[in-house]
Amino acid sequence: MWVPLAINAVMSMVAYHVCVRLIPGMKENFIKAGMAGKDLNKPPEEKKLIPEGLGAVCGCVFLMVMFLFIPIPSFITMATLDNQFVHLLCALLSICCMILLGFSDDVLDLRWRHKLLLPTMASLPLLTVYFASGGLTSVLLPWPFRSEARQIIELSVLYYLYMALLAVFCTNAINILAGINGVEVGQSVVIATCIIVHNLIELAGTNWQQHLFSLYIMLPFLAVSMALLYHNWYPSEVFVGDTYCYFAGMTFAVVAILGHFSKTLLLFFIPQIINFIYSTPQLFHLLPCPRHRLPRYDNKTRLLNMSYASYNPTTVHPVVMTTLRLLHRLGLVRIEVITNGVEEERMNNLTVINLVIKLIGPVSEPVLTSLMITIQVTCSILAFTIRYWIAGFFY
Amino acid sequence: MWVPLAINAVMSMVAYHVCVRLIPGMKENFIKAGMAGKDLNKPPEEKKLIPEGLGAVCGCVFLMVMFLFIPIPSFITMATLDNQFVHLLCALLSICCMILLGFSDDVLDLRWRHKLLLPTMASLPLLTVYFASGGLTSVLLPWPFRSEARQIIELSVLYYLYMALLAVFCTNAINILAGINGVEVGQSVVIATCIIVHNLIELAGTNWQQHLFSLYIMLPFLAVSMALLYHNWYPSEVFVGDTYCYFAGMTFAVVAILGHFSKTLLLFFIPQIINFIYSTPQLFHLLPCPRHRLPRYDNKTRLLNMSYASYNPTTVHPVVMTTLRLLHRLGLVRIEVITNGVEEERMNNLTVINLVIKLIGPVSEPVLTSLMITIQVTCSILAFTIRYWIAGFFY
Repeated sequence: MWVPLAINAVMSMVAYHVCVRLIPGMKENFIKAGMAGKDLNKPPEEKKLIPEGLGAVCGCVFLMVMFLFIPIPSFITMATLDNQFVHLLCALLSICCMILLGFSDDVLDLRWRHKLLLPTMASLPLLTVYFASGGLTSVLLPWPFRSEARQIIELSVLYYLYMALLAVFCTNAINILAGINGVEVGQSVVIATCIIVHNLIELAGTNWQQHLFSLYIMLPFLAVSMALLYHNWYPSEVFVGDTYCYFAGMTFAVVAILGHFSKTLLLFFIPQIINFIYSTPQLFHLLPCPRHRLPRYDNKTRLLNMSYASYNPTTVHPVVMTTLRLLHRLGLVRIEVITNGVEEERMNNLTVINLVIKLIGPVSEPVLTSLMITIQVTCSILAFTIRYWIAGFFY
Repeated sequence: MWVPLAINAVMSMVAYHVCVRLIPGMKENFIKAGMAGKDLNKPPEEKKLIPEGLGAVCGCVFLMVMFLFIPIPSFITMATLDNQFVHLLCALLSICCMILLGFSDDVLDLRWRHKLLLPTMASLPLLTVYFASGGLTSVLLPWPFRSEARQIIELSVLYYLYMALLAVFCTNAINILAGINGVEVGQSVVIATCIIVHNLIELAGTNWQQHLFSLYIMLPFLAVSMALLYHNWYPSEVFVGDTYCYFAGMTFAVVAILGHFSKTLLLFFIPQIINFIYSTPQLFHLLPCPRHRLPRYDNKTRLLNMSYASYNPTTVHPVVMTTLRLLHRLGLVRIEVITNGVEEERMNNLTVINLVIKLIGPVSEPVLTSLMITIQVTCSILAFTIRYWIAGFFY
């Protein structure tokens, strides 16, 4: 068990160094291809062109490391086409497909329906392998709902639907908690670290093989992510693009599904879940959703402020309007009446990043990113508490 | 056996129609992303912007059809994680990886060393699966070399090297026989058809499972290629890009390696092999190699002429120079002395397309493409003759 894991760890370290060197080398290619943008959160004199979508470089290095690694466990154990090998192939297929989709999205600006359709497609091989390897679709009931006769509940098809939705959720959840230097990769690094810690703890358990499988994938992923973070941290030299967000999301979904710890994964996604729920009115276009919802940079104070979206309150559905006003009273949304003659109001864009600014006031970008990462770490500690302490009372 | 194959055929037909409709719909996205170029072989008044790299759309439709298909054979036979399923996963992983590489190349203009390194990497999972499924590495000797004691030769590691090189060769061979409307997809459609015919013949043989596996992949591939050809035929509305060439080449390599008919595949690649050998002096930079080697359009006659590369004969290696002059005498290369004071000569760019123009004179683009396709078909008939008639005398 330890030999392939040690080899994997060494390969991951090599991947980190390759990636750290390769990213600056590829910057020119991205800028030449027109894959570049200005950093909106910088003072005018520092607004240079930043290459966008460098997650693709990470993704390719990750795939290469994995391609070089997959023969090794089979070679050591001399097993022919064992389950773990098939799981690795299938995981890489789903991940590779998502990198392709993410990169296409960065280049071609795909539509929303593609963004929902394609992760579902990419998760199909995963579900097939889950099915073909006799995957469990039953869930243990927590004690308040459990009886002598009924300890588990069989979800069958619903469980597959749940897994497909998990893949779609993970790929998009990281993408919508974004917009300030280092926050996409930062949160992914925290989540990856949590998964690795969880896997290492569970290596001592009965399902150690599933967690070993997860480690094989998460270690190289963490390595290339750290390399990207090195270049993406404030002030960013490169942007990560949708490529990285999809790559990261699918990698998490894949290891959780094939490693059978999807509920634990969702615990590590608490900030993303809150952000998703908070964002729903804009995501489902119940309220206007501008293309970018990142905070607004104030040239005078050099701090980040909330960004706003304006709407006509009479055209918004009354239920949405009531909820919004309730959130306003609770201090979770700021609503302002626009006083320029027309009957319009504006609210802060519904992202957790804006919510943090609402609660603590204007703040500089590196402080805001650090704060977001701190929130992610705090929620992770909460997640471990729930998983290893509170869950014990129910299961 | 026939049920999954029939389902695959129906899905391929659907894929054709989806692809035919999707390609024009995606044109705008490609042009907006700056992935577009002018068609150099058209009169000035017809030189509009043509989107480049639409092979990516084909590739994605292909992947989706395959993702929807892979559960089906397992579902019908109720087999759990059988060899064929693993082979399909692994084939798709290599193909998906090449589509990603091809698309990156179209967007980012990768270097030559990446173009050789990455297909080698992408073929690694393939070789691992070949190894893990107890792949044969011995070759039957033809009768002049055979004796009672020695009927087969064991190639072991050399056979894996051969397979990796096959993948690199196939992915690049189609890419270098390119440059006129429809020729990349046209040759791929002919090769795909030949493989399908070969597979259908061999379905009656003992290795029918390997050929069934190949059909599962080749039918959807042929469908999306036909759809692309529909839009890429003269006058092209879209260009296929490196994406398509890599996608096609890897698909051929994958089915041939896992289907154990790599020697037969090479017979279908006769024009590409000749083109590769003819091109070597330029490909390996023994002679200057301009970025584009496609024929030159003559605005007056509206016909295609040979394109030339100029060089200084004193700086070229004497062996190369002697070979070139010999080819010139044989009528296979045109060498002209440039009479502008400097000591320079020029030769036609070493591609089979230029060679055809050398032999028959200036010609219009649709006629030239049709001629190239005719050559491909003629060579295919030769290939089938060798495979099913002449080979019988030796094996």
